[in-house]
Amino acid sequence: MSRASKKFQKATEALLETLGSRKVKLDEASKYMASFDSSKLSFAYEALVLARSERDVETTLKLANDFGIPVTTRGAGTSLTGSASPIKGGWVLDVSRMNRIKILKGKSMAVVQPGAVVKDIQDAAEAQGLFYPPDPSSQKYCTIGGNVACNAGGMRCAKYGVTRDFILALEGYLPTGEKVSWGGEYKKFATGYNVRDLWIGSEGTLGVVTKAVLRLLPKPEKTWTVLVAFENDLKALEAVQRLLLAGQNPSILEFLDTNSVYCAEEIAGVKLFKGLSLKPLLLVEFDGPASVLREDKKKAIEWAKAYGLAYREAKTAAQTDTLWSVRRKCSGAMFALGDAKINEDIVVPLESQAKFARFLKQLQKKWKLSMPTFGHAADGNFHVNIMYYRDDEDQRRRAKGAVNDLMKKVVALGGTISGEHGIGLAKTPFMKYARNEAEMAAMRAIKKALDPKGILNPAKLFDEYEVWGKRPEKVNLPWDKKPILPKA
Amino acid sequence: MSRASKKFQKATEALLETLGSRKVKLDEASKYMASFDSSKLSFAYEALVLARSERDVETTLKLANDFGIPVTTRGAGTSLTGSASPIKGGWVLDVSRMNRIKILKGKSMAVVQPGAVVKDIQDAAEAQGLFYPPDPSSQKYCTIGGNVACNAGGMRCAKYGVTRDFILALEGYLPTGEKVSWGGEYKKFATGYNVRDLWIGSEGTLGVVTKAVLRLLPKPEKTWTVLVAFENDLKALEAVQRLLLAGQNPSILEFLDTNSVYCAEEIAGVKLFKGLSLKPLLLVEFDGPASVLREDKKKAIEWAKAYGLAYREAKTAAQTDTLWSVRRKCSGAMFALGDAKINEDIVVPLESQAKFARFLKQLQKKWKLSMPTFGHAADGNFHVNIMYYRDDEDQRRRAKGAVNDLMKKVVALGGTISGEHGIGLAKTPFMKYARNEAEMAAMRAIKKALDPKGILNPAKLFDEYEVWGKRPEKVNLPWDKKPILPKA
Repeated sequence: MSRASKKFQKATEALLETLGSRKVKLDEASKYMASFDSSKLSFAYEALVLARSERDVETTLKLANDFGIPVTTRGAGTSLTGSASPIKGGWVLDVSRMNRIKILKGKSMAVVQPGAVVKDIQDAAEAQGLFYPPDPSSQKYCTIGGNVACNAGGMRCAKYGVTRDFILALEGYLPTGEKVSWGGEYKKFATGYNVRDLWIGSEGTLGVVTKAVLRLLPKPEKTWTVLVAFENDLKALEAVQRLLLAGQNPSILEFLDTNSVYCAEEIAGVKLFKGLSLKPLLLVEFDGPASVLREDKKKAIEWAKAYGLAYREAKTAAQTDTLWSVRRKCSGAMFALGDAKINEDIVVPLESQAKFARFLKQLQKKWKLSMPTFGHAADGNFHVNIMYYRDDEDQRRRAKGAVNDLMKKVVALGGTISGEHGIGLAKTPFMKYARNEAEMAAMRAIKKALDPKGILNPAKLFDEYEVWGKRPEKVNLPWDKKPILPKA
Repeated sequence: MSRASKKFQKATEALLETLGSRKVKLDEASKYMASFDSSKLSFAYEALVLARSERDVETTLKLANDFGIPVTTRGAGTSLTGSASPIKGGWVLDVSRMNRIKILKGKSMAVVQPGAVVKDIQDAAEAQGLFYPPDPSSQKYCTIGGNVACNAGGMRCAKYGVTRDFILALEGYLPTGEKVSWGGEYKKFATGYNVRDLWIGSEGTLGVVTKAVLRLLPKPEKTWTVLVAFENDLKALEAVQRLLLAGQNPSILEFLDTNSVYCAEEIAGVKLFKGLSLKPLLLVEFDGPASVLREDKKKAIEWAKAYGLAYREAKTAAQTDTLWSVRRKCSGAMFALGDAKINEDIVVPLESQAKFARFLKQLQKKWKLSMPTFGHAADGNFHVNIMYYRDDEDQRRRAKGAVNDLMKKVVALGGTISGEHGIGLAKTPFMKYARNEAEMAAMRAIKKALDPKGILNPAKLFDEYEVWGKRPEKVNLPWDKKPILPKA
């Protein structure tokens, strides 16, 4: 037995002895489901810790430090980037059982544990007339800890901002196992370095959150939804600019390009506008007091008439649901174009959206792959879905080339390589486009300063990793979009 | 000549040679006004750099690194904490001449240089129908660079949040003189560590900002102001909670305690409610669309009737101005209670405000000093003004004791020692109450990681400094509140 594996064994024995077999799992069956995240890249590791208290987290980190064992923290594992995969082995620290939620109505705050599911937080807030806006598409499954780790977004960012904008305080542990608290149950502080916001988006490499204080808003009185079809992708994106330039502030402004609409209409069979097919769409929601919404609605309909081909507004909840079906169904239908999907989340500045639409056309032509694209147009945060067949080596090569071109281009357009998923493993090869050497060196220096032994989620963000070299697990996760295939 | 001073001389010669005498000032007269900030604690230093470009900043930092020269960056110098004072000598880097402002209307953004005055940014935004909410009381003088450095707040934080909430991107230099950029002209990124927010509030110790991208909002359609008098301080603070619990979202919610009202009424001669004197006040503003404001107004008047003694609403701009005069004048009138003022900016959680009001009464009794208190009640961010006569040694001792008690207490109440001014030199002795050892060690480690030679604004935040041991300069700064003394 090598020295390294002896050290691992000794450390894991100490862990088991301290926390007990209810919380420390060593068998392969228990460990398997935590050996990968939604990227499905599985890695072998020594022990799974099912933490139930702050103390469990502290114990795990202190032992890991003593023995130099890598620790990968995880919640539900919905990350698409491999950020929750234990690539360096060691221990996986699962905090999903720490999921308490407390709403402080008078202060418009929520105090939550890291394993609290985002939808559960939203529901608990709503029951008190309050509102937690961030809404990543995995909201029914993903945990707030994971949302903090990647600074998750969603559709309502258009008006409300990202997870960061709703985090008042974080409490937890440094990689060394020392307890720290950044902020409190108050809204302002100017008391030394803001490590709270450094933790947010650091993908579990700088600390482990055990408590978060969230800012809540008053629940909007009403919402109103309209779906607008446009002549082509460019016209749709131009209309986005018109709407925002006119000072309109939609709560949601989702773009579905012609390819995405093809998937929804031709494969999933969703029909929304009679006589109009394969036309890109904007799905627009406004929220607020009824009196303000009336104005918004009036202006939005004028805008739809001026720039769109046709529009449909939702007057009932059922109608709203119908409008949303196009967005919901296009994702599953994309699997008619390939059995593998690279779901990127690039950002381009508003004024570059038209250029970006033209580039996307060329990119699909160049690599002969279909790339249905939809996403959060008000933020310029688009999900480019590169579809290919995994077992076709040539397609795989082309998909890889396309992603690389895409990443270079968004940076050249003044944008960035990730808006809400984070870097994890999958985007490490592209960090060199988005960040200069001084920026990377500063980040590495911070990592070393806070995690001198390099135990917390090692390799993530920094070490270039080739996801193409590894075969994903064939497993269905609860949040996987079920493939919708064309009828024979 | 000592080795250290030879090194300084050589470095300053190199600086002068590179940037020229128009930008590098060595004479005492030029240097004096940049030898202190609004704390008026003056320190000797070698050279003043009047930077006019990014290149000037880069040159200064690179030379400072080569020679190990301390560099203190400054804008207007409105800081109350000594954060812009060159306590370790070396060079002062004045960026106030870098003050360009560009409004990007379609994107609701502003691109500004660090020396841009906050009020000028607000005006430029307003001219395009847009709105930059943060409004520190020094807004006519203070620069956005300084606002970023201390994460400045102001009255409108009640609804809109602090400077941090409006910073989309920062560009500038690491202490090593390397160019970096955190974020861009877009709203979302999840691309590695968020050093942007680490810089915000780091008081110029981690980098020098040369460009900021600000988020702007649509300008609110209307505002409405009401002034409400209460039986006593406690009842006023209870009313704050009632208002917020009812889901009201005022843009401004300022509290003036009985002592502050005494200063305004008895010394400055402002009379607002006939037959009611020495009653604490809440100054409340709502903003938004006219239709929403009508509702807010109705509810606010019901609330004022239920919990207040009397109220006065403003129907014209002139009336609004009259209501504000009470807030404006009380600060100057405090100088009738002492020639020195310690203006703190502590934070207490909403539910501890009543406890805090009781504590303040005891504190004044214990130390036999008057401490008129006003501030941002919705955030629990209060300015406690400890008034004393500087030349009275006993009063000075008591003021010092009172500040120490105050800082301990706010932390015990679940709050913190600074909400919007920052730490600088003045609050370094109290950091030990607000931050545990692991937190301080983490901050020090970050400082060392990003500024290995420790040249940028050294000693600030970290080294305990006794402001009591140093006599402030006798100089009037443009933003100083003119003393209003009682008529003989």
